[in-house]
Amino acid sequence: MYRFKPELRIPGPVPVPNEVSLQMAKPMINHRGAYFKEHYPKVLARLAPLFGTTNQVHMITGSGTSAMEAAVSNLVSPDTPVLCLVGGFFGNRWAELCKAYGAKLHVLDFPWDSGIDPQKVQAYLQAHPEIELIFMVHNESSTAVLNDVEAVAKARQGHSALLVVDAVSALGGAPCQMDAWGLDVVVSASQKCLMTPPGTAFIVFSPRAREYAQNCQASRYYFDLRLYEKYRENAETPFTPNIHNVFALEEALTMIEAEGLENVFARHRLMRDMMRAGARALGLELLVQDADASPTVTAIKYPDADSFRARIRERYGVEFAGGQGVHANQIFRVGHMGYATPLDVLTALAVLEMDMKKFGQATKAAQLVLEA
Amino acid sequence: MYRFKPELRIPGPVPVPNEVSLQMAKPMINHRGAYFKEHYPKVLARLAPLFGTTNQVHMITGSGTSAMEAAVSNLVSPDTPVLCLVGGFFGNRWAELCKAYGAKLHVLDFPWDSGIDPQKVQAYLQAHPEIELIFMVHNESSTAVLNDVEAVAKARQGHSALLVVDAVSALGGAPCQMDAWGLDVVVSASQKCLMTPPGTAFIVFSPRAREYAQNCQASRYYFDLRLYEKYRENAETPFTPNIHNVFALEEALTMIEAEGLENVFARHRLMRDMMRAGARALGLELLVQDADASPTVTAIKYPDADSFRARIRERYGVEFAGGQGVHANQIFRVGHMGYATPLDVLTALAVLEMDMKKFGQATKAAQLVLEA
Repeated sequence: MYRFKPELRIPGPVPVPNEVSLQMAKPMINHRGAYFKEHYPKVLARLAPLFGTTNQVHMITGSGTSAMEAAVSNLVSPDTPVLCLVGGFFGNRWAELCKAYGAKLHVLDFPWDSGIDPQKVQAYLQAHPEIELIFMVHNESSTAVLNDVEAVAKARQGHSALLVVDAVSALGGAPCQMDAWGLDVVVSASQKCLMTPPGTAFIVFSPRAREYAQNCQASRYYFDLRLYEKYRENAETPFTPNIHNVFALEEALTMIEAEGLENVFARHRLMRDMMRAGARALGLELLVQDADASPTVTAIKYPDADSFRARIRERYGVEFAGGQGVHANQIFRVGHMGYATPLDVLTALAVLEMDMKKFGQATKAAQLVLEA
Repeated sequence: MYRFKPELRIPGPVPVPNEVSLQMAKPMINHRGAYFKEHYPKVLARLAPLFGTTNQVHMITGSGTSAMEAAVSNLVSPDTPVLCLVGGFFGNRWAELCKAYGAKLHVLDFPWDSGIDPQKVQAYLQAHPEIELIFMVHNESSTAVLNDVEAVAKARQGHSALLVVDAVSALGGAPCQMDAWGLDVVVSASQKCLMTPPGTAFIVFSPRAREYAQNCQASRYYFDLRLYEKYRENAETPFTPNIHNVFALEEALTMIEAEGLENVFARHRLMRDMMRAGARALGLELLVQDADASPTVTAIKYPDADSFRARIRERYGVEFAGGQGVHANQIFRVGHMGYATPLDVLTALAVLEMDMKKFGQATKAAQLVLEA
């Protein structure tokens, strides 16, 4: 059999550029020493434009879920009325976290193939003035839906609830304007559009959320915002950080800044459009309609998707992701986030059309999008 | 000025061998794919002998403190009577964590320059049969004390309290016999004697601790043992792991296994004895008496220690650690753990004796220990 390079086309962790990977092998340094204290605040300041904020970005050593729990544990006291907007696996994770912290849990369920409807959110909030916190996902990678965070933020109208957003698989791949949209907490992580290995998560609080957190009664220590703020004054972390992810992130941000953030977003939208045009040209059904489609991952309906994925992985070295929850074995998902460029979409489509013996059909459709 | 290589002689994070560092730059893989599922359980199984256990080792993406909080959040319900044995900065961290989780907190304080006295623990437990959990530190790196965990475990006698041990800066540098000593929870982390970059922590529960955790009422999700156990059945982690730390740890364990665990422990004891003999030959006072001395870090009294450390760092490129808490600016600490060998102790002593214009005196004393 011919040899194929491994191609990781899952919605995170994503392939890491060599320039970034090599930072991971740098010599160890003292995390309380001068070099770290110089670079650490700088790299977090360079992340702020991706969040669209002038608030302080904090770094937590952990998976993306660690930053989600940091949001919950700094905000949710026992019996706090919260509203979770659930349209997929990660929206559901917010609900599980809030439940674990004893919230009075309200859940608004949306179909696992479309975006959150801001009008339904507005109606629910009007009927429930007691809600103090709203939790939602920006890019629901389990369904490949990009939710309209700005519209949900606006749907609050006069309602005072704080809006908490999981932007793990969106940040750096889709615009986020935390301050302009009036978001109160935004969390993200290193291993998606930021092209850095997993192990580091990020969290930003608005001034209003910081103030609200002062009265939170939840048990917390490792995730306690107050410790992060206190040590940040001295350009340190409260706990030994993932030092090499800071080095790696510096390099990744240099690449993102060189391309320009608007160009990065446009590239992700282009890859989305190429992927969707290609899938359609093969007669495949997309899980999500155009208006709700994610720029970082595409979900495609496919019978017995898991055996198809195994075949593609073995035959061509290309790894797609499977479906989660209700979509298990019903869809496959193609990641096109971070260190992915238009030719990666062409190869993803090429293996798909070869498997279907529809040579050239999907790649042609995608090329027409690229060259339009 | 002549050039000097940077030498990190702090009690963690420690220098990482090149063989291990290069693992950090490997290509990204799918954390739910076959390669990870093969290697992940294997590397955790290889850690078990270092803990001295047949129980399952779990890996948490986070700093050492994340594993400490995992212990507390799985065991400490509101008003649970707990006893924290505090003789330094990290013993105090147990107390802070237990307080954050609403424990009924008992603290036994010991001087910040000597080991925990098992007889005092025994007396306290006899007077307080209600205590359900005991928290202690194996190697208190803030004071350079190695506590006698086995003796504290025995001091429980008939008392049913579970014993929880922070072995972050001990594991792989000093013997730990979790099962034989009857320890109930042991936590550690990657960046100390395991010679791996920071970002990963470890936790092991005894069967008795697992059972006790079933009834714990504390809020937890990211640290919930039940999730780690559930995903472990499928050789996965509940949350995206620090994949490259698994690769790095494999390489580090290969080095440790090649040397042999008993030889590794003997090397650490030798470095301790060399360091102490050298310091004494210079007329310097050690913070800790021989019986309590740590094999992984040595604390030395020194007037205005912080300006001395800055001088040594600038002049020779060697970085020592400072004092914490009551010892701030009163001591300096020399790390000799993990990827440190006897000649590293000689250079640490060499810069010390040159600074004191006592050429050759400390290194001679240490050489006599090495060659004895």
